[in-house]
Amino acid sequence: MISTDDFKARRSLLAATFEPNKLDSLLVTALPNIRYLSGFTGSNGILCITPSESVLFTDPRYAVQSALEVSCKVKTIAGPLLPAIARHIKSRKLRNIGFEQTRISFNSYNFLRENLPLGAVLLPQQDLIESLRMVKSPAEIDCIRRAVRTNSKAFQKALHFVRPGVTESALAAEIDYYMRRYGATGPAFETIVASGQRAALPHARPSSHSVASNQLLLIDMGAVQDGYSSDMTRTVFLGMPAPKWKKAYNAVLEAQLAAISAVRQGVRADKPDLAARKVLKKSGLDRAFTHSTGHGLGLEIHEPPRVGRKEKTILQAGMVITIEPGIYIEGEGGIRIEDTVLVTANGCEILTPTPKTLTII
Amino acid sequence: MISTDDFKARRSLLAATFEPNKLDSLLVTALPNIRYLSGFTGSNGILCITPSESVLFTDPRYAVQSALEVSCKVKTIAGPLLPAIARHIKSRKLRNIGFEQTRISFNSYNFLRENLPLGAVLLPQQDLIESLRMVKSPAEIDCIRRAVRTNSKAFQKALHFVRPGVTESALAAEIDYYMRRYGATGPAFETIVASGQRAALPHARPSSHSVASNQLLLIDMGAVQDGYSSDMTRTVFLGMPAPKWKKAYNAVLEAQLAAISAVRQGVRADKPDLAARKVLKKSGLDRAFTHSTGHGLGLEIHEPPRVGRKEKTILQAGMVITIEPGIYIEGEGGIRIEDTVLVTANGCEILTPTPKTLTII
Repeated sequence: MISTDDFKARRSLLAATFEPNKLDSLLVTALPNIRYLSGFTGSNGILCITPSESVLFTDPRYAVQSALEVSCKVKTIAGPLLPAIARHIKSRKLRNIGFEQTRISFNSYNFLRENLPLGAVLLPQQDLIESLRMVKSPAEIDCIRRAVRTNSKAFQKALHFVRPGVTESALAAEIDYYMRRYGATGPAFETIVASGQRAALPHARPSSHSVASNQLLLIDMGAVQDGYSSDMTRTVFLGMPAPKWKKAYNAVLEAQLAAISAVRQGVRADKPDLAARKVLKKSGLDRAFTHSTGHGLGLEIHEPPRVGRKEKTILQAGMVITIEPGIYIEGEGGIRIEDTVLVTANGCEILTPTPKTLTII
Repeated sequence: MISTDDFKARRSLLAATFEPNKLDSLLVTALPNIRYLSGFTGSNGILCITPSESVLFTDPRYAVQSALEVSCKVKTIAGPLLPAIARHIKSRKLRNIGFEQTRISFNSYNFLRENLPLGAVLLPQQDLIESLRMVKSPAEIDCIRRAVRTNSKAFQKALHFVRPGVTESALAAEIDYYMRRYGATGPAFETIVASGQRAALPHARPSSHSVASNQLLLIDMGAVQDGYSSDMTRTVFLGMPAPKWKKAYNAVLEAQLAAISAVRQGVRADKPDLAARKVLKKSGLDRAFTHSTGHGLGLEIHEPPRVGRKEKTILQAGMVITIEPGIYIEGEGGIRIEDTVLVTANGCEILTPTPKTLTII
């Protein structure tokens, strides 16, 4: 588990970025960032950080809960939080107040701006906390390992329910149920179960469409456990696949393995993406690969770094990313294979234990 | 189901508000509002509405899906949508562009502002679409009825699993599973299962805490079906409750019924809240009622109107709201009773069929 000292250390690391950014304080409005810095898991809060003090503002619904889980000062406010933040800015005489520009509404920004004391300014900041979150601590990696194991266990269980006639939604219900039973607090995103032609929609919602023989079945799922996410995709076949699909499966698998081989500390995040595309090009499938190769994950299911074309982030040991090339052919179907992997000094560790050999049910 | 004509009619109603608000166009960035006006259910989109034309911008992942479900023009954009919106503003010569001030990030607003053509302005708007959404159409009410029925059916089923020793999370997993099996696409929010003292936390997350004999058990759950939400809370007892809890239960039930009796077209939204508080005052429990009495629901689980102190919205036939008084005593427990109700000309229809008499398991 993440300890009180961990939260304190994270806030100190963050505060060390204030001087170079000319800040005396930072308003944190993104809930995953608030959780990362304080431990708070509620749905309403704003965290104000200065080098000498951190205060979480929340509402009375979270009075008891925040006292249990939060490692800094807490103020519970009946009604909207922003006026209390404005008062806090005044009373602490803050002047150069950073805010999360992509994670605050225009309205909240505008309210604060209109209520600033004379001489104080709001300074837009991007990814200050997200950058810290990219490299995971051993305790965080443990949480992700648990989420990954739960995910794989539930997938294995759900395969027992795959048979012609079962609907995509019924399968998704089994998957979500077993993730919960095996320890998840919930799915990390809306579980995707897409069969046949519907697998050509990269973001298909499970429908009342039934799984049929001689079709492929794409399952993309993730578990949240202790706040951390996992992410995995497998594509299986009901009955013998047509030779062209078998070929396509092997091409995607080869691309995924090539991308994984390209992952290691010090490598630029576009390299695994390039590796996957190069393999798919050999089979003429590169144009059917319509998204990027992967993304970071942790307290959120999508976090920096992105693993894709033109990405310049350098991979570091302790980053946890997905590797998930896929191909989609409208009106026919789609194949995606995805693992959660941990970047290490010499390569990477594939956290996902579920096999990737072509599975025929 | 909602028809293409319905979406068109909604956009026309919205466009009729442009002249009084001095707008020639509106950028819709909130996904539920985009769905309400176009039918689009994807996770990335911006809708630009003018009186003569509506265009949805989304990314290639949703190319196939948006062609199936969207009732207006669609442009799929590889990469960020905002530059395409800026180009659209230029090409259509828009000048007075409304935007959803509470539902756009500072960053997106700022990008658009910096890329506006000379003479064009961005005009903050609040609740333009939310106001239209408050009164539901018969087709929408049908969707909510289905969500409510699924909810109640799953609750009834889940009661079979309630016994001393079962954990809160295991019960929550059963509830979510049966909602899915009975037709929901998912829970409307993180299902709350809180037993004993933990029921004093109005927003408790299901934990590994086991349900024990002679304790109360609070379950707050909602289903999403065809995009629309339901919301229900029941508090049941395992074994005979202590007389003081029996009394408290009856007080909350009486408060809930009083609030329901106060609901009808033409009444101000603070009246049901007042009615509930008045009843709880008789038992000295009014100070333990720490939240408001209810909220609208539909495409979102919380929508206008709020049913609470100082609310001035006038209830109209076709509004769907929750009525959910509750009391919370730290270190002891809590009781909440909640129904989804439909405002009618002469009163209201309680949509939730689950009984509210004190249930002992």
